[in-house]
Amino acid sequence: MTHPSAARQPAASIPLPAFFESDRAEIDAALESLLPPETETPSVIHRAMRYSVFAGGKRLRPILCLESARIFSDPPRGVHPVACALEFIHTYSLIHDDLPALDNDDLRRGRPTCHKQFGEAMAILAGDGLLTRAFEVLARADLPADRRAALVREISTAAGTVGGMVGGQVADLEAEGRPIDPQMLEYIHRSKTAALIRASVVSGAIAGGAQDDDVERLRRFGENIGLAFQVVDDILDVEESSATLGKTAGKDQSQKKATYPALYGLEKSHETARTLLERAHAELAPFGPRAQRLHELASYLVARRT
Amino acid sequence: MTHPSAARQPAASIPLPAFFESDRAEIDAALESLLPPETETPSVIHRAMRYSVFAGGKRLRPILCLESARIFSDPPRGVHPVACALEFIHTYSLIHDDLPALDNDDLRRGRPTCHKQFGEAMAILAGDGLLTRAFEVLARADLPADRRAALVREISTAAGTVGGMVGGQVADLEAEGRPIDPQMLEYIHRSKTAALIRASVVSGAIAGGAQDDDVERLRRFGENIGLAFQVVDDILDVEESSATLGKTAGKDQSQKKATYPALYGLEKSHETARTLLERAHAELAPFGPRAQRLHELASYLVARRT
Repeated sequence: MTHPSAARQPAASIPLPAFFESDRAEIDAALESLLPPETETPSVIHRAMRYSVFAGGKRLRPILCLESARIFSDPPRGVHPVACALEFIHTYSLIHDDLPALDNDDLRRGRPTCHKQFGEAMAILAGDGLLTRAFEVLARADLPADRRAALVREISTAAGTVGGMVGGQVADLEAEGRPIDPQMLEYIHRSKTAALIRASVVSGAIAGGAQDDDVERLRRFGENIGLAFQVVDDILDVEESSATLGKTAGKDQSQKKATYPALYGLEKSHETARTLLERAHAELAPFGPRAQRLHELASYLVARRT
Repeated sequence: MTHPSAARQPAASIPLPAFFESDRAEIDAALESLLPPETETPSVIHRAMRYSVFAGGKRLRPILCLESARIFSDPPRGVHPVACALEFIHTYSLIHDDLPALDNDDLRRGRPTCHKQFGEAMAILAGDGLLTRAFEVLARADLPADRRAALVREISTAAGTVGGMVGGQVADLEAEGRPIDPQMLEYIHRSKTAALIRASVVSGAIAGGAQDDDVERLRRFGENIGLAFQVVDDILDVEESSATLGKTAGKDQSQKKATYPALYGLEKSHETARTLLERAHAELAPFGPRAQRLHELASYLVARRT
């Protein structure tokens, strides 16, 4: 058997894209302005929501949204609330996933999880509050009404129970400790992670005013990188240490989770990630240099080590 | 001290409005068609969502929505998905409120609560799924995009943390066991219950194509009956038996909840409910006979004994 490291991507050759930090700063400022202040009644839930939103996330989904929008509208006016809505939904899903009744995690990005810090009741309600706020922020965005309605439709579907994030989380829980079925593994990864990443890319395109065929092209791009992202996540859980990941490594195996490496091995998993990345890059070709940033971002998502 | 029953409304003189059952049947059919079937993967969450949605609820919010729409558009075309979205949000809030970390209720309408039937993890996710589905159904409704966007904005705000349902639930938890502050009691009732009832009425008006000033008039109507509804709920918790209510009576007092009777006594609480109903009825006057059904519905909400 090949040693895991032999199958690795040349991570060192893919640095964090240059625009990453400036996008992240813009998004953090927008998140700050779109969340109720801590002083707003009832204060405790706004503290809990902010605690989890400002816990050091990489903001991958909002950055994908902004950069997708930029292909059609640069600077991407009116798109920041859309990017923030995606981060609110991602954050709510982490808060609820970490609950004792679900993954029962005490740490997230090296800090106590929301329910460890604020109690279970407040963590449940903070998640509910963030999910609800996401749709409020979308509905209030400074964009034409038809785009706002299309965004709510796209994002709610991706976050929902039928092929969406909640459905993937349920299937993941159901699959724990059972023999892994390749079709179910695919379903879990596509719904639990890829759906919201795809929606991040598609939302940017909708918000930026893309034509339907371009939206569909970016949907295929997003589906491929979304799935690649989760395959890489599975790989990192095996290959990296808890210190590097900022969360418990090797947890998939100890919880008998359905993962790509568990079913196909590490080498085949790396190959799958590379193939998905190639497919994603191919979808961007017709956009030429306008999609350069999305291209780099996709490469980074697959080459990352955390 | 006057015996509680002396202060009662003449409940027997206010029957269930005649249209109630036909509206309810229409709404149940729409709920059936707008929820994923039980066979949809992953089946368990769709069973859990349906279990709680079809648990015998009175459908007050959807009926308010339909009847408000009917003032402007009769029959109320395209409004049923809006009515269903409100019921999904109401149901999700009950599922999460019943969880062990919150109110820890084993029974709801005489049946095991969602987490007793499906486990805590599935109850949390079923609530998340219903909340998400509500916005998906709004975004997909067969209504002009500007109305769909306005509906998402109205309903997400009413369900949110700032003066909305989640904010009210948090304030209610925070107030338990503490001396009751009249301002906080008002905040809790307005946010926890009245906000979504108000939004039900306003949503019907928006979906039905009402002009802005009529929407605002119905907003005031909804605010008054929403608050009256919660005052009556507090009264019933004191005056009625668990068998009548289908939930544990006297629970507010045993949990030291902030309620109107606890702060003002039963007689003053009945008076408050009557005053709020009069104010609500006054807002309907300019609509004449077109608002007859909403008028009856408001009377029923205040006179009800369950």
